[in-house]
Amino acid sequence: MLKPSILLTPVAIAAAAMLFSKAAFAVSHDPESIQNKALKDVVAFEITEGLTTEVGQRQAGTEAEARARDWSVKKLKALGFQNVRNEPFMMPTWVRGAETAEVTVPYPQKFHVTALGNSASTGDAGIEAEVVYFDSLAAMQAAPDGSLKGKIAFVTHNMHRAQDGSGYGAFGPVRWNGPGIASEKGAAAYVIKSIGTDSHRNPHTGNMNFPEGVKPIPAGALSLPDADNLERIMKLAEKSKMPVAMKLVLTPQNIGEQESGNIIAEVTGRDPSKGMILIACHLDSWDLATGAFDDAAGCGIVTAAAKQIMDHGKPLRTIRILWAGAEEVGLWGGKAYAKAHTGSKHVIAMESDFGADNIWRVEFNLPDGAETVQKQIAQALLPLGIGSSGPPATGGADVSNIIASNNLAVIDLQQDGTRYFDLHHTPDDTLDKIDPKQMRQNVAAWTTVLSVIANSDIDFTMPSRK
Amino acid sequence: MLKPSILLTPVAIAAAAMLFSKAAFAVSHDPESIQNKALKDVVAFEITEGLTTEVGQRQAGTEAEARARDWSVKKLKALGFQNVRNEPFMMPTWVRGAETAEVTVPYPQKFHVTALGNSASTGDAGIEAEVVYFDSLAAMQAAPDGSLKGKIAFVTHNMHRAQDGSGYGAFGPVRWNGPGIASEKGAAAYVIKSIGTDSHRNPHTGNMNFPEGVKPIPAGALSLPDADNLERIMKLAEKSKMPVAMKLVLTPQNIGEQESGNIIAEVTGRDPSKGMILIACHLDSWDLATGAFDDAAGCGIVTAAAKQIMDHGKPLRTIRILWAGAEEVGLWGGKAYAKAHTGSKHVIAMESDFGADNIWRVEFNLPDGAETVQKQIAQALLPLGIGSSGPPATGGADVSNIIASNNLAVIDLQQDGTRYFDLHHTPDDTLDKIDPKQMRQNVAAWTTVLSVIANSDIDFTMPSRK
Repeated sequence: MLKPSILLTPVAIAAAAMLFSKAAFAVSHDPESIQNKALKDVVAFEITEGLTTEVGQRQAGTEAEARARDWSVKKLKALGFQNVRNEPFMMPTWVRGAETAEVTVPYPQKFHVTALGNSASTGDAGIEAEVVYFDSLAAMQAAPDGSLKGKIAFVTHNMHRAQDGSGYGAFGPVRWNGPGIASEKGAAAYVIKSIGTDSHRNPHTGNMNFPEGVKPIPAGALSLPDADNLERIMKLAEKSKMPVAMKLVLTPQNIGEQESGNIIAEVTGRDPSKGMILIACHLDSWDLATGAFDDAAGCGIVTAAAKQIMDHGKPLRTIRILWAGAEEVGLWGGKAYAKAHTGSKHVIAMESDFGADNIWRVEFNLPDGAETVQKQIAQALLPLGIGSSGPPATGGADVSNIIASNNLAVIDLQQDGTRYFDLHHTPDDTLDKIDPKQMRQNVAAWTTVLSVIANSDIDFTMPSRK
Repeated sequence: MLKPSILLTPVAIAAAAMLFSKAAFAVSHDPESIQNKALKDVVAFEITEGLTTEVGQRQAGTEAEARARDWSVKKLKALGFQNVRNEPFMMPTWVRGAETAEVTVPYPQKFHVTALGNSASTGDAGIEAEVVYFDSLAAMQAAPDGSLKGKIAFVTHNMHRAQDGSGYGAFGPVRWNGPGIASEKGAAAYVIKSIGTDSHRNPHTGNMNFPEGVKPIPAGALSLPDADNLERIMKLAEKSKMPVAMKLVLTPQNIGEQESGNIIAEVTGRDPSKGMILIACHLDSWDLATGAFDDAAGCGIVTAAAKQIMDHGKPLRTIRILWAGAEEVGLWGGKAYAKAHTGSKHVIAMESDFGADNIWRVEFNLPDGAETVQKQIAQALLPLGIGSSGPPATGGADVSNIIASNNLAVIDLQQDGTRYFDLHHTPDDTLDKIDPKQMRQNVAAWTTVLSVIANSDIDFTMPSRK
């Protein structure tokens, strides 16, 4: 969901909404009444509240994620879905240990730090070393080989809030490529300014991997205020030609292959030969918070929309709900799903995994012949303030593998990500961040799209598969 | 600074500002030019940046506060003040240990907790006990004696943001009286929803004391999202008649009498017989953050204003700056100052200790005969958007003892506290929270007031001392 965007101006949206007339999108399942009913949804919030309260954090491969699967199967059955099941798979698991960071010279003070996923351990004694500062990943890349030997490399960035989350793609490499580059240049450890846009003492974790043959080193993220403080210290120290030393303790460990699982539920359709619509989210969260935005909300939204359709009567096509396991730590659930289900007939894949704020744009990647349906969806979404002037849809992380293996059509409902990276992968991703009104707009948009595509009998098979 | 308030409407402020004319408040030191110069101040931010970057947290009685005193003496001398000195005193010191909290039954998950100042220790093994929930302090007070025996009492509250910080007075007793009440009812430990108004996983610490003869018990504050989660768990468990158990580990300790100190600096006046104007802030912070809002900013603001006056030429009266030590943990600096200086001739006391957001109201407690000066100040502050329709001034915490012992006149410049209790006593009280523009408005207001009172020769002696 992290692609460049073309923004519709509010004026353009309003003008389009005014032109919209009920007659223009009349279908067998009237979108307007379905939309209005969905705007009163309570199921999405109920699922998000349940997962974050009755389970809490749900790190992949841990007993907490297993409890989340039990909760999910029970909940999806209670909601009345069919074929509710857990499809287990194994995946390598890394767990957090102790984590502290402090400047020891010249201005002793403690910082808030968290280990990045797959960080090596410093050992209980920690590492104390001189800090070398770079204001970008490019600056560290330009440092001579061996120049970081025995040192702690510290890299900052200039990420800002953006509606479409573009900053993540631009500055994320500081997290996911930086540790390997630092290791190759001989660094003893690597710390970054958290990849985020907030001002709280809550560091952002997230996955990274060392390239084949590169020695894993300890790698952590400082909270943004702490990173700003360290940056000021580095600049003061440079002026006075004083060294800066940091002591870092990170003791995560790899605990080997553990069980995770994909939770599946269905609204069975009247005609299975028409192929399934796959709607996805991920059940696992990072361990630092209860994962309300990332991604209990996504599971709530897609499931609430499927329930709206189910409650309206059996749709033509089957809608399959996938609450994927182990997304955060390497898309293991999405890979396992694609492996297990490549032979099944899917027609369209969709995912919700970008919080719970208003959807502002729909994007499509549909075959020739679907123009009428596409136009119908775009018009039906206008009353919700959703435009359609975007690039082609590409799908979310959990459905990326099945989209690739089965060459699926895709529809993306893009959420407002302005505050997403304030919360993403931090301890602050908790239930209070959900705005129920915006969440209901999401459910209404998803219900609108599903009501059209689940009841349309046109062929969504993409050209190269024909 | 936590008193009920009468708000001036924006319209009233604007109307008053329009009526304001330069001629109305002409004094020897022209307030308008002094104000305009002060609006360009950089010293307040420089002090706040220095204390939070080059020292960091400055808990009273620790080596960090001692480093802060060294930094302060050096800085105040460099700024050109006279009689810069440290006046040491001793005070009892409590320091934080390990702190964790987790629900163990029925929905295992970890919460963010911090010990309240003067909390007892649970010991390294912690306490695991059933949780009893109260939605107010009054509800816990109404519980039968002995009903909390061996249990962990959990109290929430309904504090909201307010411009004048009124919520702190209303709900603060949950923190400062609750632990004693819980102990008297037999509780093994006490946890609260942090006394604050934010939505972050950063609990609010703060001082409390057990009444004479009441056994100290472990007492901690959960972050607001965690407390909300525990509240939901308590309500679900109540419906299902399940017990809820929590494991709490808090290992703070009392380390006995330690040295703190008051830092003093002066702008010596032309006529010492006119008595000193005392302007105060506190140098110590809580240990969880670098104390930018609480209260490096206050020290920055009062000192920058004094420097503006000093740079303009020797004032009639001496201005004494007090950066008090050990405020957070029991006003030890203010008490020590009053004890050492009751014999000195002070005439007016003022303090800045409520962040760095805009000043919105001036309050006075001046003797008869000061009406003209009071009016002059009120008018001179109007261009800064500051009204004067408040209650009598009462002064800040650090000057409360000298005000009482010497019966001093007081002027309060009330700051906008809307977001103060988002940050107060949390890890989030860091430099990035300072809005330099609002901070400069503070410096301009303080400079305006000081320029009038330091150059006025009227007698500010309060009636009962005459």
